Amino acid sequence: MPRWESDAQGRLERAALELFEAQGFERTSVAQIARTAGLTERSFYRYFADKREVLFAGDALEAHLVAQVEAADQALAPIEALLAALGTADEVFPSRAFLLRRVKVIAASPALAERDLIKLADIADALARTLQSRGVEPGEARFVTDVAIAVSRRATSRWLADPDATFSELVVQATAELRVAVASPGPGATAD
Amino acid sequence: MPRWESDAQGRLERAALELFEAQGFERTSVAQIARTAGLTERSFYRYFADKREVLFAGDALEAHLVAQVEAADQALAPIEALLAALGTADEVFPSRAFLLRRVKVIAASPALAERDLIKLADIADALARTLQSRGVEPGEARFVTDVAIAVSRRATSRWLADPDATFSELVVQATAELRVAVASPGPGATAD
Repeated sequence: MPRWESDAQGRLERAALELFEAQGFERTSVAQIARTAGLTERSFYRYFADKREVLFAGDALEAHLVAQVEAADQALAPIEALLAALGTADEVFPSRAFLLRRVKVIAASPALAERDLIKLADIADALARTLQSRGVEPGEARFVTDVAIAVSRRATSRWLADPDATFSELVVQATAELRVAVASPGPGATAD
Repeated sequence: MPRWESDAQGRLERAALELFEAQGFERTSVAQIARTAGLTERSFYRYFADKREVLFAGDALEAHLVAQVEAADQALAPIEALLAALGTADEVFPSRAFLLRRVKVIAASPALAERDLIKLADIADALARTLQSRGVEPGEARFVTDVAIAVSRRATSRWLADPDATFSELVVQATAELRVAVASPGPGATAD
């Protein structure tokens, strides 16, 4: 069984995605999703708190990333520990094709886009707390987490567009791009 | 008149902040806010769409930042243009003391914290679009915007804690910190 979903949960997720694609998020009901998945509405609520939650399956990604950071070599700098962890995110992603459809459905619905922001912020909070438990000062933990999430978003959008690259390679590539971007003297020296 | 608020709008904002501090966001009504500000509930809705919106006054910050990026020297790299713009954000912030109280009230209410995330994402979207209109490729525009927002958040939390620093100095400092953080060989070279 894949780590991302139980079978019933997976059926509900796939049914929801298909319905959201076909008729939009707003016009799809929980009853419809359950029926399409061959399950009851009651079963739906065993897995998801509400209709929006169906595309944000549990805390698998957060749990995976936190465990990776916790297990990271103490000699790694905070940002290195985070980027190494984020580079393994594809181990808990569903397939690239599913993720791509999901991204499009989320972008088409303000309600889903808001939930997506909140979920990403929850993951960032968990990662910053994990860095703190490794002895990183809270402000620095928050900052490097925000930066690492930016790198990861860059890698994710490239990964969705490029079927040949591995996710961890794209994290390394985005990090290199960031290094070049901030290598210049900075705004204080150039913008005055 | 300060750019952040009209007089009636400012009174509503200050009344809301005081009530949220004293009794919490959930237990405060729009009617109470209006009454405390010496205004009618109808006046409240002339300025704000709902109770949450009262702490996110209009689009003053977004409009200021977009105008700064639009006016930036074309010779500046995208991230330099953004960081220079963000370094002037304190020109439209209310006082540091007001901002500090606001940050605490927002952190204490999940409903306000969600709205804060959405507002920040709206600002990031506007800045990324502005970079695109300067000829920056969409993926790069999104990435450098996410990074610049991370830098700006780091500068903002330091600015709230340190009454002696200027905001633009703190943006330069956070950028230097980022440069050091990503100067190492990166996760691909160290984490395997």
